[in-house]
Amino acid sequence: VTEHERIKALRALFESSGDERPDGARAVLGIGDDAALIELPGASGRLVVSVDDQVEGTHFQSAWLTYEDLGARATMAAASDVAAMGGRTAFILGSIAAPPSLDDASLLGIARGQKRAADELGASVIGGNLTRSPVLAISTTVLGEVQGEGLRRAGARIGDQLWLSGPVGRAAVGLALLSGLEEEIALEDSHAGRAARVCLAAWRRPLALQASGRACIAHAATSAIDVSDGLAADAAHIAIASGLHIVVEAARLMLDATLFAIAKRLHRDPLGLALAGGEDYAILATAGLEVDAIPGFVRIGRCEAGEPAVSVEMPDGTRKPPPRGWDHFR
Amino acid sequence: VTEHERIKALRALFESSGDERPDGARAVLGIGDDAALIELPGASGRLVVSVDDQVEGTHFQSAWLTYEDLGARATMAAASDVAAMGGRTAFILGSIAAPPSLDDASLLGIARGQKRAADELGASVIGGNLTRSPVLAISTTVLGEVQGEGLRRAGARIGDQLWLSGPVGRAAVGLALLSGLEEEIALEDSHAGRAARVCLAAWRRPLALQASGRACIAHAATSAIDVSDGLAADAAHIAIASGLHIVVEAARLMLDATLFAIAKRLHRDPLGLALAGGEDYAILATAGLEVDAIPGFVRIGRCEAGEPAVSVEMPDGTRKPPPRGWDHFR
Repeated sequence: VTEHERIKALRALFESSGDERPDGARAVLGIGDDAALIELPGASGRLVVSVDDQVEGTHFQSAWLTYEDLGARATMAAASDVAAMGGRTAFILGSIAAPPSLDDASLLGIARGQKRAADELGASVIGGNLTRSPVLAISTTVLGEVQGEGLRRAGARIGDQLWLSGPVGRAAVGLALLSGLEEEIALEDSHAGRAARVCLAAWRRPLALQASGRACIAHAATSAIDVSDGLAADAAHIAIASGLHIVVEAARLMLDATLFAIAKRLHRDPLGLALAGGEDYAILATAGLEVDAIPGFVRIGRCEAGEPAVSVEMPDGTRKPPPRGWDHFR
Repeated sequence: VTEHERIKALRALFESSGDERPDGARAVLGIGDDAALIELPGASGRLVVSVDDQVEGTHFQSAWLTYEDLGARATMAAASDVAAMGGRTAFILGSIAAPPSLDDASLLGIARGQKRAADELGASVIGGNLTRSPVLAISTTVLGEVQGEGLRRAGARIGDQLWLSGPVGRAAVGLALLSGLEEEIALEDSHAGRAARVCLAAWRRPLALQASGRACIAHAATSAIDVSDGLAADAAHIAIASGLHIVVEAARLMLDATLFAIAKRLHRDPLGLALAGGEDYAILATAGLEVDAIPGFVRIGRCEAGEPAVSVEMPDGTRKPPPRGWDHFR
């Protein structure tokens, strides 16, 4: 059973929960999107709320980044879900589960990172929890506001174009360098060395693209998601939720000098890295043909009738299924 | 450095976060109380939000309860913080970090428990997160609404009386039975056996006392907290936040037949169990002398001028400091 199927089962279980409450508050969007949306009587806009976990051994190793970067990273990853709904994070609750061996300086470092991220987002840390745990884990709840209905995964229409804000693939390369103990490439005085430093920073210091999310709303985007699982996988989430086929045009995909330089050094395919690498927290959106520009975005594909999945259109016009993951690009 | 000091340090770090935001939303109460309070422009009442963690090895062992009870327990523990503010939980996000060895039936059991608790609370599960982790951990975010300013730890006044809703000490006995492998006492056909079954149920199936919290607001309570650390420790939280001394009158403290029977069997002091045992999620509140009853509550003490701490007044009029913890009652 895949994680997708597990989430489907949970969604079915909790589905009956969507009804209006006696006090008038109503969940207008529940499990299965980047964030949940709540309508409060009297309030302008909708409340957006989401939670994200960072667990040592699953998402990071403590040796891979400073505690301050860890706290900021956990906060930005959570805030990215709000950004992808077109919202702005206003309030943050950061729950830290830490082994007794974590000293006070390290704990305060995590908190300082949460505060740094909150400041960058224009948000406030208003609560949290401290608990003992055999492994270090940070659970971040973000609350924000979005005007109107927000941007969801469902909503893309046949004929829409596909837009991408920000580079992709870099964070996954950074993670690969760290987990493969190839971090020392970043010490090289070379194109690859500079690219490695950029990729390490992309993984260690991600940003939630709130301005890009809001630009999507301002430019009538029909759907949006943040690139956390990987460009192809996240495009597939839109395709499935919207019931259409998404074509990513390889020639239009940003294959920047950074990705080329590091891919060459690692003997990997840069297109594969761009399609499969996750945790960049770029925003992927769809919008109608009448939209000819979204500030900060480039057009990278289109929506068609067909199987709810993603294909990659190569420069020669042939199509292929997207890569499944990192190890398929060797 | 104690947990209290750690939280103080974090509070100082995040303090500057309390300002009004451009969109008019404002955190009116941040870190350091049971829950945070948010004022939203246009919304009636305040938004209450809190997060609570349950980590295997720290808060529970999987063998101690069913997965369904685990999911419900995690949800109720979090909702209790909202209840203690006088609010009602409306929306729940349940984040589950689980080892790959946790099978789908177990995961679904946890979710069913979250749903059961949500139904009992009149709330909806609207989101969450699934992630891999070496240890099973549930992080629960609860969102609710409270009228007016809510009930805080600060607010008790000299001369106020101290009120308690619900039995205390039972959950800690249940936990002690489980962790000391004395669970088999519950199999005895005796007073102690019946008491053990009640205590195990108190630990395994706690309830967030929303009606009691609302009764506090309706009856002009001046402060409130839920009994999670232990009656004496939680009374001390009120004493410190309100800047006064709290006297718990031992003779008035509910020493029910259940606690007496099990204390005798375990060779412990029932008063000590009542004062030190946590996780009952009873509500402790203060109210002025003019309040002569709060539905579901009994009066157990009073607030005086003096050191911000708690003392226990024995039936003979002598005072002693409260017990420090479970092991001080042998």
